[in-house]
Amino acid sequence: MATFNVTYHLDAGEDTVEALAGAVLLEQTIETPPAVGRRYPFVREHLMGRQVALEPDPDGGFRATLALPLPTAVADAAQFLNVLFGNSSIHPQVRLLDFEVAPGLGSLFHGPRFGIDGIRACLGVAGRPLTAAALKPVGLSVEEVARLCRLLAEGGVDVIKDDHYLADHPFCPFEARVRACLDAVAGVRSRTGHRALYVPHLSGTPAQIARRYALAREAGAEAVLVAPMLVGLPCFHELTHRLLDVPVLAHPSFAWADRVAPRTLLGKLFRLFGADAVIFTNYGGRFPYTRATCRAIAETLRSDMPPLRPAFPVPAGGMQVERAAELVATFGPDTMLLIGGSLLEAGEGALRERTRAFVESVAAAAGVTTRSP
Amino acid sequence: MATFNVTYHLDAGEDTVEALAGAVLLEQTIETPPAVGRRYPFVREHLMGRQVALEPDPDGGFRATLALPLPTAVADAAQFLNVLFGNSSIHPQVRLLDFEVAPGLGSLFHGPRFGIDGIRACLGVAGRPLTAAALKPVGLSVEEVARLCRLLAEGGVDVIKDDHYLADHPFCPFEARVRACLDAVAGVRSRTGHRALYVPHLSGTPAQIARRYALAREAGAEAVLVAPMLVGLPCFHELTHRLLDVPVLAHPSFAWADRVAPRTLLGKLFRLFGADAVIFTNYGGRFPYTRATCRAIAETLRSDMPPLRPAFPVPAGGMQVERAAELVATFGPDTMLLIGGSLLEAGEGALRERTRAFVESVAAAAGVTTRSP
Repeated sequence: MATFNVTYHLDAGEDTVEALAGAVLLEQTIETPPAVGRRYPFVREHLMGRQVALEPDPDGGFRATLALPLPTAVADAAQFLNVLFGNSSIHPQVRLLDFEVAPGLGSLFHGPRFGIDGIRACLGVAGRPLTAAALKPVGLSVEEVARLCRLLAEGGVDVIKDDHYLADHPFCPFEARVRACLDAVAGVRSRTGHRALYVPHLSGTPAQIARRYALAREAGAEAVLVAPMLVGLPCFHELTHRLLDVPVLAHPSFAWADRVAPRTLLGKLFRLFGADAVIFTNYGGRFPYTRATCRAIAETLRSDMPPLRPAFPVPAGGMQVERAAELVATFGPDTMLLIGGSLLEAGEGALRERTRAFVESVAAAAGVTTRSP
Repeated sequence: MATFNVTYHLDAGEDTVEALAGAVLLEQTIETPPAVGRRYPFVREHLMGRQVALEPDPDGGFRATLALPLPTAVADAAQFLNVLFGNSSIHPQVRLLDFEVAPGLGSLFHGPRFGIDGIRACLGVAGRPLTAAALKPVGLSVEEVARLCRLLAEGGVDVIKDDHYLADHPFCPFEARVRACLDAVAGVRSRTGHRALYVPHLSGTPAQIARRYALAREAGAEAVLVAPMLVGLPCFHELTHRLLDVPVLAHPSFAWADRVAPRTLLGKLFRLFGADAVIFTNYGGRFPYTRATCRAIAETLRSDMPPLRPAFPVPAGGMQVERAAELVATFGPDTMLLIGGSLLEAGEGALRERTRAFVESVAAAAGVTTRSP
């Protein structure tokens, strides 16, 4: 029986945990009384899974590791999620902690097509963390967004992404915005030599995303932003492996706290499904992840997990320029530091200088010097 | 400012709840410090939302009702989810309780195309609950699945759905299974006059779903099963409103407990996005929903919510034949009662008779008599 190991947290006492672990095993495999499964030889031999370990969790409750059947998990991306955490996700007592990227899964899903090396090659930047900023708030006109984009590029930031609220709005149409922002970064590049990568957000249904991607590529976009949980993980996987031919940044919107360990959802599942860089809410900002959680996400994204390329961790959310040294020390050089609202707070008049301060403090913390653009 | 009301549960004390409510309002609107938003007249006037109410929740904590901007929410299906519960979903202290189906949302998403009346017309059954059964466990061959399908149809059940673990497997290919099951129900109909609706499961990425749907329609399928949270809600919406021309049953797999109130996720969001019938895990079975939660889901699916048609509630999961009367009393006649593993437990030799007992007990509980097929 070909299987892969999946570890769940079970919020149960000693007297009930065996029964709960057995119930999760049934739910994630044959979803019938065991006698029904045992009646059919193929089901009995290949599809019923087994319990590998059940031990107390140092954080309370228990950890159950189950060997789940690969033959059902590898049918397609949605089916893999079904086997991983389908019906059991409805049980508040059950959380998904981790899963094994068995060879059958790695070859099915492939992971990042560009990853850290690909994005670095795209930008021509080695040996230091990348810097990133966001175009926001939603409600700006195309001209206003493009002006922010120009100022951020003039400040020397590497990556400028749409806010995830920027879609295709009557007050800021997608195609016009993408063209104006690409023009803005091209203008800065021709004047100063600094290359900033503008990253438009692809939102919508699968057909809308495909149309917007065609427009963005036509206009010359060289990377895109997608929120995998918003568009759906199977859709995200199809995008990364059938449609997109540029690196993709993944946004954590709609990631639903508490049900899946963040390092597993953002660090492993997003990477497995093809994210080249993964934005996550950083510690010490306005979100609740701890420093340890954030480091675990970053380490999982960069860990040795053949055949998957490493992906960039992108801590974000309530970051400030003043924290650059601390964050470089926490996350190391293979990181993209994303700063959003804090850069914008001082007003457009100060944006270029504040961006430059951010870029320079990241470079200084990494022990390299940057040439002012 | 055009807005729609969204209610969140905030797990906070009296001293911190105002700040948390303010943080959620910012997160779900402009996602920058307020001063940045106020700088731009269009943002200030149309996109910053406002707090409508903040009151203690009888279950502990607080309920905050926020008026969120429609102009960003109606951009597309993913963007609507972004505004509804995007970044705030990452906050364990914040749960989505409810939202208002404002006219702008109803006209964007349309809801069920068939609904209760459409499914009843499809089957020619009025005045009593529908009965449904599932083909499982995964691992059966095409011949074994088709044999179960025939026995269930001979037992007189109205709807026979694929288990949600049935995808396109080498050991049970999608097209062959769909053809064999459709042949099985057609055979029973021609011999007995009883019409059972076979419902294949559409799993996979958007392109795989489209291919499988084309095969299923070509073979004559007249309804399909999709798990909206697995395939992604925007993908689900596109399926129901651009691709599928038959009723769709929605399956709750990957629905992630505790973050969104079940009546809102399954009863309102699934319906808004086009589900004609919604399967949910029933009380008293192997899942944790209470009777009150299940009734709230059912009532939300059938409530007056123009322009959305009412959708069938489909309680399921650990049901038994013996509970038919209780469940008919709980959910009323406009319900589809789904029974899975329990019917199969007695073995194939007894399946037809046990199915007939289920069908007859539902009819008896509803005060109608059925003719044995």
